Amino acid sequence: MAHRVVIIGGGFGGLYAVQAMKRADVEVTVIDRRNFHLFQPLLYQVATGALSPGEIASPLRYVLNRQKNARVLLGEVVDFNIAGHEVLMKDGDRVPYDTLVVATGSTHAYFGHPEWSKLAPGLKTIEDATEIRTRVLLAFERAEKETDPEERRANLAFIVVGGGPTGVELAGALGEISRDTLRKDFRSINPAEANIFLIEGSGRLLPPYPEKLSHAAEKALIGLGVQTRVGAMVTQIDAEGVTVKAGDSETRIKSKTVLWAAGVQASPLGKLLAERTGVATDRVGRVKVAPDLSIPGHPEVLVIGDLAYLEQDGKPVPGVAPTAMQMGRYAADLIGKRQRAEAVKPFRYWNKGSVATIGRNRAVAEIGPFQFSGHLAWLTWLFIHLLYIVGFENRIQIAFQWAYDYFTFNRGARLITGEWASADEALGPASLSGRR
Amino acid sequence: MAHRVVIIGGGFGGLYAVQAMKRADVEVTVIDRRNFHLFQPLLYQVATGALSPGEIASPLRYVLNRQKNARVLLGEVVDFNIAGHEVLMKDGDRVPYDTLVVATGSTHAYFGHPEWSKLAPGLKTIEDATEIRTRVLLAFERAEKETDPEERRANLAFIVVGGGPTGVELAGALGEISRDTLRKDFRSINPAEANIFLIEGSGRLLPPYPEKLSHAAEKALIGLGVQTRVGAMVTQIDAEGVTVKAGDSETRIKSKTVLWAAGVQASPLGKLLAERTGVATDRVGRVKVAPDLSIPGHPEVLVIGDLAYLEQDGKPVPGVAPTAMQMGRYAADLIGKRQRAEAVKPFRYWNKGSVATIGRNRAVAEIGPFQFSGHLAWLTWLFIHLLYIVGFENRIQIAFQWAYDYFTFNRGARLITGEWASADEALGPASLSGRR
Repeated sequence: MAHRVVIIGGGFGGLYAVQAMKRADVEVTVIDRRNFHLFQPLLYQVATGALSPGEIASPLRYVLNRQKNARVLLGEVVDFNIAGHEVLMKDGDRVPYDTLVVATGSTHAYFGHPEWSKLAPGLKTIEDATEIRTRVLLAFERAEKETDPEERRANLAFIVVGGGPTGVELAGALGEISRDTLRKDFRSINPAEANIFLIEGSGRLLPPYPEKLSHAAEKALIGLGVQTRVGAMVTQIDAEGVTVKAGDSETRIKSKTVLWAAGVQASPLGKLLAERTGVATDRVGRVKVAPDLSIPGHPEVLVIGDLAYLEQDGKPVPGVAPTAMQMGRYAADLIGKRQRAEAVKPFRYWNKGSVATIGRNRAVAEIGPFQFSGHLAWLTWLFIHLLYIVGFENRIQIAFQWAYDYFTFNRGARLITGEWASADEALGPASLSGRR
Repeated sequence: MAHRVVIIGGGFGGLYAVQAMKRADVEVTVIDRRNFHLFQPLLYQVATGALSPGEIASPLRYVLNRQKNARVLLGEVVDFNIAGHEVLMKDGDRVPYDTLVVATGSTHAYFGHPEWSKLAPGLKTIEDATEIRTRVLLAFERAEKETDPEERRANLAFIVVGGGPTGVELAGALGEISRDTLRKDFRSINPAEANIFLIEGSGRLLPPYPEKLSHAAEKALIGLGVQTRVGAMVTQIDAEGVTVKAGDSETRIKSKTVLWAAGVQASPLGKLLAERTGVATDRVGRVKVAPDLSIPGHPEVLVIGDLAYLEQDGKPVPGVAPTAMQMGRYAADLIGKRQRAEAVKPFRYWNKGSVATIGRNRAVAEIGPFQFSGHLAWLTWLFIHLLYIVGFENRIQIAFQWAYDYFTFNRGARLITGEWASADEALGPASLSGRR
């Protein structure tokens, strides 16, 4: 019988792992709660109406349908039987493995304020993205109807908490929506009067990037009308706005739309896996893996992607998509080498660079020794994202959509959808209580 | 002050009316509960994963953003003050009008069985479509996991109630999904073993079409593996299947996925309008309008589209998209002619023909004196739908998507999304209780 590999999670780590095992003598089962692979780096474009969910998601079964040694299992893993080499599914099924690859990634964290999750949605799932899209569009709709100037102002205030790549991209897109996309759409308000605030706790935006690029990003955002607040912590979020603390001074910003792009924490399966194997986790729940990505004492259990904590040259390997892809390929290679009893080198992350986009024309990029910003960086961003999106079909659709939106300033997917019983209910204060 | 026109509803009727008033000396307000115009004839393609919601919906503000005499109001109308020439909004606002155009369309009806709505979702909104998409895909997922042959069979049984154009198109698409799209996606089941039933109460499919075309449609559906039951009524729907009565015999079909494409009823605003004006409604709640589409005794109130009941040459004008478009244009023309004190002829529906598609290659069409089916009819269908879809952007996207899907048999938007707390819950019997 072929070696049984079970991969939990069909994100970048899991998908690259299974695809790299295409020609291996293994039987792979990919388990995911969702039936699609999601291209998370473009999720903010769904949240801001530029792309449709279908354009950044590919059904896992479709992606893997020609890979004869792979099968997909839709379901949720609730526990591990490490001694018995099984994962336990919520429906009671048990899935046996010879090698287990855990790649369940991360979710957002609210720094000990779980009650903020309903007030300030984060951006990890398709549903998060359409929820944010609905909230942003409804805020403009409420402003159009509002006659009280202060209330109108609060409806036109958008606060993005967290100045990492997601926060920067989200704030940039909001700037563009208010300045360009919606320019002619309203009759009572001028959408360009929207105030977009980007709040970052550390001393500068995009902390992992070189300082020069942080400043370029900030400049580009200010050009799009975004008000940046660095070195500022959000201490309170409620239905009327946020309280921001910078140094000793506290400011109150009134806003009906607060978006969360601040903290991440590892998927809860990491903690469970740690309990079952005795491995340590870091402060956000990532599993501290051995240099070959296995759990110390359990070579048959690998952890990859955002769920893995690994240091390289004294620094943690960053939790980004390229890391997950490289770890996925490494895991596949490791399994093959073990089967052939070949020696295995430790995993080494190769930093190909980082690029974050700000609006429709600008980006900041660090590729090897090169740091650059502006139009060229944006073209680089464009190229990389089209290159890595899964599926030829999505690639063409997105290329068309971007080209079209670029020339027209449009964002055609700005639909208010979801569970709103009626627009009026959604337009009223009830919408702020976090209904999904 | 310009003549104030208020249009309720941004469907085909409302949208064509406001656009036809582009150069008129009027101030138009379009009120809708949703922020987008939906191209309903392609909704079944969203329900079956071929298109994304964003591709068949256009934000109303965007469609109308260059029309200076038009504004969009997002909200729900709850009542009419006919004497005072106002519509009353749910949020308490009052919108005054000189001419009112009511174009709120229709919804599905369950023939006195409202409890069926959760068991057998209909197809009128974007949310309906994604709900159906999720149910259909989850049924295949459950079948893949199921070991009991009878349960597996029930999961692979899909019942479409109603053999009009929507039912025929839905059943054809399901046939194709099971035979082509999902062909290589599963490992335990063969999706082609799915049983798709199409149940129609009258003596043949597509009752409004010529008999020859009904038979062509039935033949095409059978070729896609659909089992048609004509002259058969559904008398019972529950979580385990449906009971079908044909003549004196009752049959039970076990199925976990029942879709409703049978009855329509007018939007509830029709009834309210009838109460406030004393006009009559027909058996499904449509407003019986005068030959100029106004309410008898209230020339300033027009009713158009699916909400209007009008007879022409002794037969009711059909409730289809072209009727609504023609009525919308007529309403705009009428308002202009009244302003110029010109004579107005009664509305006349011009039947341009009908075309319904069955799968990726076949359709039935009746254009003027010509009745045809097969590939040519399908090309006609393709051309007409691309011609009428609102927005150049959507047109290109859909053209690409269809071309791509045609050659690859793919349907890239087959995402399981929504409120499912977890896949396991969704995969279990709970999913059948109609959670949204």
